[in-house]
Amino acid sequence: MSRILRVAVAQMGGVQLAETRTQVVARLLELLREADATAATFVVFPELALTTFFPRYWFDEEAELDAFFEREMPSAETAPLFDEAQRRGIGFYLGYAERVETKGGVRRFNTSILVDRSGRVIARYRKIHLPGHTDRREGYPFQQLEKRYFEVGDLGFGVSWLDDALIGMAICNDRRWPETYRVLGLQGVELVALGYNTHDVNQYHRESKHLKMLHHFVVMQAGAYQNGTWIAAAGKTGDEDGHELIGGSCIIAPTGEIVAQTVSDGDHVITYACDLDLGIEIKQNRFNFEAHRRIEHYGLITSQLGVVAPEPPDR
Amino acid sequence: MSRILRVAVAQMGGVQLAETRTQVVARLLELLREADATAATFVVFPELALTTFFPRYWFDEEAELDAFFEREMPSAETAPLFDEAQRRGIGFYLGYAERVETKGGVRRFNTSILVDRSGRVIARYRKIHLPGHTDRREGYPFQQLEKRYFEVGDLGFGVSWLDDALIGMAICNDRRWPETYRVLGLQGVELVALGYNTHDVNQYHRESKHLKMLHHFVVMQAGAYQNGTWIAAAGKTGDEDGHELIGGSCIIAPTGEIVAQTVSDGDHVITYACDLDLGIEIKQNRFNFEAHRRIEHYGLITSQLGVVAPEPPDR
Repeated sequence: MSRILRVAVAQMGGVQLAETRTQVVARLLELLREADATAATFVVFPELALTTFFPRYWFDEEAELDAFFEREMPSAETAPLFDEAQRRGIGFYLGYAERVETKGGVRRFNTSILVDRSGRVIARYRKIHLPGHTDRREGYPFQQLEKRYFEVGDLGFGVSWLDDALIGMAICNDRRWPETYRVLGLQGVELVALGYNTHDVNQYHRESKHLKMLHHFVVMQAGAYQNGTWIAAAGKTGDEDGHELIGGSCIIAPTGEIVAQTVSDGDHVITYACDLDLGIEIKQNRFNFEAHRRIEHYGLITSQLGVVAPEPPDR
Repeated sequence: MSRILRVAVAQMGGVQLAETRTQVVARLLELLREADATAATFVVFPELALTTFFPRYWFDEEAELDAFFEREMPSAETAPLFDEAQRRGIGFYLGYAERVETKGGVRRFNTSILVDRSGRVIARYRKIHLPGHTDRREGYPFQQLEKRYFEVGDLGFGVSWLDDALIGMAICNDRRWPETYRVLGLQGVELVALGYNTHDVNQYHRESKHLKMLHHFVVMQAGAYQNGTWIAAAGKTGDEDGHELIGGSCIIAPTGEIVAQTVSDGDHVITYACDLDLGIEIKQNRFNFEAHRRIEHYGLITSQLGVVAPEPPDR
């Protein structure tokens, strides 16, 4: 018997600084309707879907920064998305900037939520692999201030049952790290939902633009295959406030094959009937962790943070 | 300044059961000469390069099995390879079946050695990710008895300086496991030398043949990029005792790009001038482990062997 989950990836064109939440939510509603028209029952929206990718800007004032953050979810502005999804019986993944007030002060995270078909938030993930830097960098094409504006996620990588599918969440740069997929894989993940915002230039050093797309795909294809899991990845694409974002939103099978991919550079829905059982043979054979993993030889992965190379021999 | 290591990958056509060690070493010598003609100073030979991939056969007698194993390295039969390499000033990686007599009895490993340009064995690796099974399987196209004939390697994944290049070793199925590259990456590896024997059919379940090659490349491309390392992978290819082995021997850059690849299905040398500094920008930025890894969230990778999935909710 096959277990089919009809998954939609809802790619978005850029969200401009001038756009209001209400305008963006209207776009998400339209994407949701398109997904419903393809009989999808689960939709993946991008990272920071409600705003521009604001970590590319330096803000001196906390109030300026806070304008990009959500204090509650759903809120008055985002409730229509939850209501419409519930009405249509569609679950979704949504990325947004999360602001939490605690006794210790304000905390900010780059967050995604998993919402079930009844409109209930059933899981939350806070981005662990924050890229970028905390300082202002002159001469860069843009800033990458995620390390300044967000705390490292404190919830770990987890999986949740959505109907009979075991879903894991990750965000953007997490997809480049094999540890992300492996921690989810060790929990039996069947579909990794992932939103991203990726600029088409490397801000750190010169690099051919085609490599951005090669890297984007190759890390996910490997992660899917090495853990026998589906991956549904939704990005923003095209122009966002004068910055170009890569597209390539896609659905990847547990075989590592890219089975659906966006081509447009605007809002665009792709849907695929994901057979959740397709990963079983991979999990039971080639990547039967119980039979083949050798954790006694993996110690450095969790005991050592950075590189420790042996001293070169005397010459 | 660039540090260039001219690396040759010496792909082999199948080694037939009827071939003697002396015949095989003559082939290796010819490959070594070809590599030297391209000014290579380091050559990667395949896994189990001296014999057929014998774990595909069931042997009742230990003596039959031992015929495929080396008791010393170099031996009378393999010494000409070491001598010629030393004469030409070429280092090499060689895979072979290693038999060791200890007080506790006979031990057998699927082994590779790293030999420097003076003909000295400077490092040894014993395969950690042994694929296959220990029992005889009826109805399979062939057996995969590595788990029966070899012990799991006891030396870990290590790196060694070969001149001014930091070399790591892995063997065949190790390349599918992200843990392999990460443990080497945490030691600053600059080039992973890897030999393999991969059949063009999946012995466990039906699978399109093209996936064998997709998987072969995608895991290595991801591993190279995610650790900023070169990979030089040498396989056997074509017919080996009536079994078809995939080719695709290749050199992969730290960018994840396949920069050289064999096309023939026989003995074939490809050489590439590997700039060892090419990985530095990747190691210092995107995959700056010190800055971005979050080992506090990776615990399961070393604490848990197999999959532990949450219970599905009651329905």
